[in-house]
Parts: sequence; C-alpha cells; structure tokens
Amino acid sequence: MENLLSDRIKATPPSFIRSILKTAVNPDIISFAGGLPNPISFPQEELLESMERIVKCFGSKCFQYSLTAGLPELRQYVADRYNKKFALNLTIDNILITTGSQQALDLISKVLLNKGDGVVVEKPSYLGAIQAFSQYQPEFHPVELTENGLNLKQLEETLKCKNLKFMYAIPDFQNPTGLSYSAENRECVYELLKDRGIVLIEDDPYGDLRFEGERLPYIGAGRLHNSIVLGTFSKTVTPGMRTGFIICQNTELLRNISIAKEASDLHSNIFSQYLIWDYLTHNDYETHVAKITSLYKKQAQAMMDAMDKYFPPTVKYTVPKGGMFLWVTLPDGVSALDLFPKAKEKKVVFVPGDPFYIGTKNVNAMRLNYTNADCETIEEGIRRLGELFKDL
Amino acid sequence: MENLLSDRIKATPPSFIRSILKTAVNPDIISFAGGLPNPISFPQEELLESMERIVKCFGSKCFQYSLTAGLPELRQYVADRYNKKFALNLTIDNILITTGSQQALDLISKVLLNKGDGVVVEKPSYLGAIQAFSQYQPEFHPVELTENGLNLKQLEETLKCKNLKFMYAIPDFQNPTGLSYSAENRECVYELLKDRGIVLIEDDPYGDLRFEGERLPYIGAGRLHNSIVLGTFSKTVTPGMRTGFIICQNTELLRNISIAKEASDLHSNIFSQYLIWDYLTHNDYETHVAKITSLYKKQAQAMMDAMDKYFPPTVKYTVPKGGMFLWVTLPDGVSALDLFPKAKEKKVVFVPGDPFYIGTKNVNAMRLNYTNADCETIEEGIRRLGELFKDL
Repeated sequence: MENLLSDRIKATPPSFIRSILKTAVNPDIISFAGGLPNPISFPQEELLESMERIVKCFGSKCFQYSLTAGLPELRQYVADRYNKKFALNLTIDNILITTGSQQALDLISKVLLNKGDGVVVEKPSYLGAIQAFSQYQPEFHPVELTENGLNLKQLEETLKCKNLKFMYAIPDFQNPTGLSYSAENRECVYELLKDRGIVLIEDDPYGDLRFEGERLPYIGAGRLHNSIVLGTFSKTVTPGMRTGFIICQNTELLRNISIAKEASDLHSNIFSQYLIWDYLTHNDYETHVAKITSLYKKQAQAMMDAMDKYFPPTVKYTVPKGGMFLWVTLPDGVSALDLFPKAKEKKVVFVPGDPFYIGTKNVNAMRLNYTNADCETIEEGIRRLGELFKDL
Repeated sequence: MENLLSDRIKATPPSFIRSILKTAVNPDIISFAGGLPNPISFPQEELLESMERIVKCFGSKCFQYSLTAGLPELRQYVADRYNKKFALNLTIDNILITTGSQQALDLISKVLLNKGDGVVVEKPSYLGAIQAFSQYQPEFHPVELTENGLNLKQLEETLKCKNLKFMYAIPDFQNPTGLSYSAENRECVYELLKDRGIVLIEDDPYGDLRFEGERLPYIGAGRLHNSIVLGTFSKTVTPGMRTGFIICQNTELLRNISIAKEASDLHSNIFSQYLIWDYLTHNDYETHVAKITSLYKKQAQAMMDAMDKYFPPTVKYTVPKGGMFLWVTLPDGVSALDLFPKAKEKKVVFVPGDPFYIGTKNVNAMRLNYTNADCETIEEGIRRLGELFKDL
C-alpha cells in the first residue's frame, strides 16, 4: 500500500476538524469545534421558493452540464457587489465559482506550487488551508499574527526568501484566532508586498459577519496585480451547497485556475448557482446578513460572559469583532491537545491549537466556535470546560 | 507570469470540449461535440417533488456542512444496487461520493501519482481523464483499443514497465470510440492484471445505457484488491448536480482518497446527495433508465442511417451497443482537426481525434455524440458533415 501512494498524500495531514465532525454528530456533545453556521440562519423557505422559480424559469438548464467558470449571472452579481462595496472595477472575467472556498485553496495551490516553493502563512493559520497547501509539498513560512495583524518585521524578513509563490491571509476575524488586521497594518503589509510579484490570497469568508466597527479595505484587491480574494456563500446562505468564488485581478492567472478546475471537477453544481443567484436577487440579502450578525454577536458575548464566569484568570481569550471563532490561551506549558480527551469525557469539544501550526506540538491554546449553539448551550459548554481549567 | 505557474499546470492541456462548449451555446450550431445528455431525459418534475420532500423531512441538514465521504443513505443505495446487479459484497465503507466522476479522476491521481509514475490508458482514451492525470505529470502508456477490447499483447508488454500505478479503462461503450470489451477480453485483462498489484480504474458512466446485448461483469470489481469502479448519476438523472461516486475495494486506499477530498473541497454538495437519494428511492429508476436507453437507441440509429446516406463509403464508423458516442474514421492522411473549422462554418461541430491521444497529431478520426439532439437534427448535422466529406 505504501508503495502505491504518492508522496503528496503522505505529506497531507488528515483534518482534525473532519475527524471531530463525526463524533460531534452525537447530540449529547456540545461542540465548539466545527465552523458550522447556526442552522437557524439558513433561509430554507426562501431557498425552496427559489428552487421552484428557477426550475420554472430555466428548466433543464439548471440540470445540464455548464461552464467551468460558473453561471455568468452569479459571477456578475459578485462583481457588482464587490465593486459597490469596495470601489473595485471587476468584471465577470475576474470571477470564478468554486465548490466552496476549500476548492479555491486547492486550485490555486495546484496552479502555483511546485514542490519546495515557498508559501507565507499566518502563525497560527487556518488548518484547512494548511491541509490544502500541504498536498503540493511547499515550504511553509509562518509569520506571527499579533493583536493588530502580521508581525511586520518578521514579514519583511520572510519576504527575502527565494521561491515564494504566495502569501495566504485572513485579515478579518481570522480563523482560528478571531483577530483582525488594523488599517495601518494592512497598509504596511501592502507596502511590503507591492513590488514582490507574489500572489496575495485574502481569504474572506467572514467579512460580512462584522458586529463591531467599520469594514476595512482589502490589502491587495484593486491595487496588487496578483491579488486574489476568496469569498463564499457558506456562512451567510448555506454551506451545504458548496458555493464559493475566486476574485482574481490577473485574468491570465484566473484562466490557468479555470483549466485546473475543468481538470478537477469540470464545473461546480449549476443548480446551486442558479439557486443562490435567484435567492440573492429576490430577497433582501443585506438584511438577512444583518440578522445573522446580530445573532452571532449575542452568542459571542454569551461565550465571553461565561468564560469570565467559569474560567480562571490565568486563561485568556481574544475578543472578536465578528466572524465565528475566538482563541483561548492557557497558561504556558499546558497542552490543549492533552486536555481534549478529558473535555470529550465531559461532553464538550474544541479544536486544540496544534493543527493550526506547522510542526508545533502541544500548543497551549484552542479554537472555540460560538456560532453553532444557542446562548444557553454555550454557557453550559463553557461551564464544563471551566471545570477542567479550574486548577490551571 | 510563467515564473509563477507550476510545472503541473503547464503540463495540463485545456480541454478541447470545454472550449467548444462555449461556441456550442449558439443555437444555430448542431453540436455532436459535447457528452451532454438529452435534456428531455431529466426528471425535472420528480426532482422538484423530491426537493420539497427533503426540505420538509430533513430541514437544515440539507443545507449544513456534512461528511467528506458523502451521505450514508446514498452510499448505502449505491452499495445495495451494485451488490444486487453484480453480485458484489460492498458496504458503505467502499463508497465515496464525488463532485462528478471528473473529481474521482483527479482525486485518485492525486493520491497515487508521483511525477513520472506510469499510467496505462486506452488508445484512444477519454480526454477528460488524460487532462486530469496530466496534472500529476505521469508517464502515459497507451494500449491500443480494438473492436473487442484491449490489444492483449501490447498490454502484456506494457505491464512489464516499472513504476506503474494504475490502469484506466472504460470497458462499456468507451469514450471516445463507443466500443466495448468482450467477455473474453475482460477475462484476459484480469489474468494479466491479477498479480500486479496496480490499481485498475474501471470508469463506468454509461453502463446502464445499454441498448443491445447483456451487461457483462466488471474486470476487477469483486476480485482485484485494488479495484476501483467509477459511477455517476450525471447520465441518468442530472449532470448539473455533479454527483458521482467511487467504489473501491481497498478501504485503506479509499481512506486516503477521502483525505485528498477533504483537502480539495471538504465534501460534495449535500443537498444534491439528499435529492438524488430521495429521487432514487421514490421513483422507478430502472424504468426511467430504460426510457433514456430507448431514446438514445433511436438517436444512435438515426445517426448511423444518416451516415449511410450522406457519408462516402471511405468513411467508417463504429456501431455502439449503448452509451453516448460513436467514432468516425476518415481515410488515411485526412486530419479531422483540419476539417473542424470548415465544419464550424457549416454550423456543425464534433471533437477531432487528437485530444484523445497522447501526443498524436492530425488523427484521421472524430468523436460524434448522438444523445443531445433529436433524430431530425442529427440527420441534418450528418448531412452537413457529408458535404464536407464528399470528396474523401
């Protein structure tokens, strides 16, 4: 068996989250582990109406093979929305629909990475991204993430490395930490990147879920030739439909990503693309998003209140201004991974810090998700964790 | 730009079919190029009923994140159907749902191929498979496909090569030729493969669409440890939903494919999986398939009748017993690729032979699809081609 497998797959770690998802199906367990939206946020009624409408209006087109880049109407919608919101100048030629944002991470790596090429990531970074990139056996260059964004000195030093292909960042409500880059930090990162030619991937699944402060501009979009922004409808409409998108300034690069996509799955589900486009154009999407945001704000607050109540003062946490996660830091030397089985016994789960790092073990931190449980359940889950932490 | 791109993507040919698909949107053009099902075969009413039912029955589960391997109910359905039909012994642990069969080709290559590893393919082979495999820069070993199956002498010789990882075959109604392997040829192929340990991928998107003769057993399923069979609902229910599946005897291999899948797109659209499962279990699927088969039989016959009427006797064609394609061979030295622009002027398109071969140019053959046009349109398209061929 070992002889059959590629070096690539041997270098790809299985996802800790995906392995937890199976255990989290147990309804007794309170899960702060996944990045699942609250199911009450899915506009089921409206989506069902849209289904009936698109089958009536477009008939067999919803069910037939379709174009690799995606439904033109949906790509136009994305271009228009981002042009309006961020004063960009996008056309549908800058947009490609993907099977969730995860596929974007795979396709971009596929198109850019030879074995050993350099990839700059935040430290810690999103584990799904680390997993996607690992398939192409790059050299990872983690740059420390601070309260205000990237450690600029480290970034400057890192950018001197040869063979860098891209930098991957989540400037808003980062996964796993919940931290956001300040306006000043964004500007400094831009200045460091602007003459380098490497691709900047700004992954933005949570940007719309802001419950405090004003939206800040992207680092690269609209001004870096090799700027990529990733978006998704997974957090605001439905993740089950696996509909994400790539916004890419460089159309030649996007053409290559499109070739990789046709080789990888021909095209994404076209029914879902009609569906989401119809839903977006027949409903007040911004109001819907505002409702979700207000829900998550309450849930985040409930988690923080409970942590203040049940956690000892030696346990610290980040205060997110949006998104789905916060990051809990335990005292030095305490391994969150070691605590995991004990937490599972108490029927509460989280993601220990390790899989968000490249090769670091027994990290004294964990990611908590607050979007997929009501406030009462959140308090109970934190109470259970608090029992574990009481002697820390 | 060239400096940014991976060697992999430079080695991946854009799909001739996908580039044609865009032109084929022009309603004046008669297209024998794509592999599109006839849209009248989509059970739209029944699918809409299923949508309403699954939203009612399963609610938010249809819209939430889900398991990488796919919906257990759908995997169980697939296992049961194949167990019954082919006397196999599958459980859901042998089944993984993919985003169309194209994704299966990508994932399997990803898990098995290092650069330079050997892949045995039919000559000619499916261009989408060649494209998927090319991403991993293998060494291709084409083995001639004859009227009855593979050229066994060539296969035996080829199997002596080192570093072979898998063989890819379409034993029923092959794409592009429409040819099928005889029972005897299957047995001989099995004998040659059985002690080799390489993976055998039997791609079977068309097997249910048989309009003549009896279904033959698979070459490897049920008896080769490293047997993989690929199936899809694209040709019999709807391709737009991108729902295919991998049947893999070796569960350790499938576990690795699953890791590649979670890194590539987390999981396939879960709504579609509920939908197709509900459709299959609430309707008479076998009768539905029989209707499509009878439709395609008529269309294939219409194409052959028209070719007899309009093509000169120097132009030959294969007689398919099912599936979606037949293969037209022009006199020696006539390049189908050269004829393509002239055919396009006459508003009829096909796929010239070249992209079905590894590195062979100006092939004197073309693939014609007969499933996506009514009999009258087929006759008119063949008449137009006949005008081009009259001096051959």
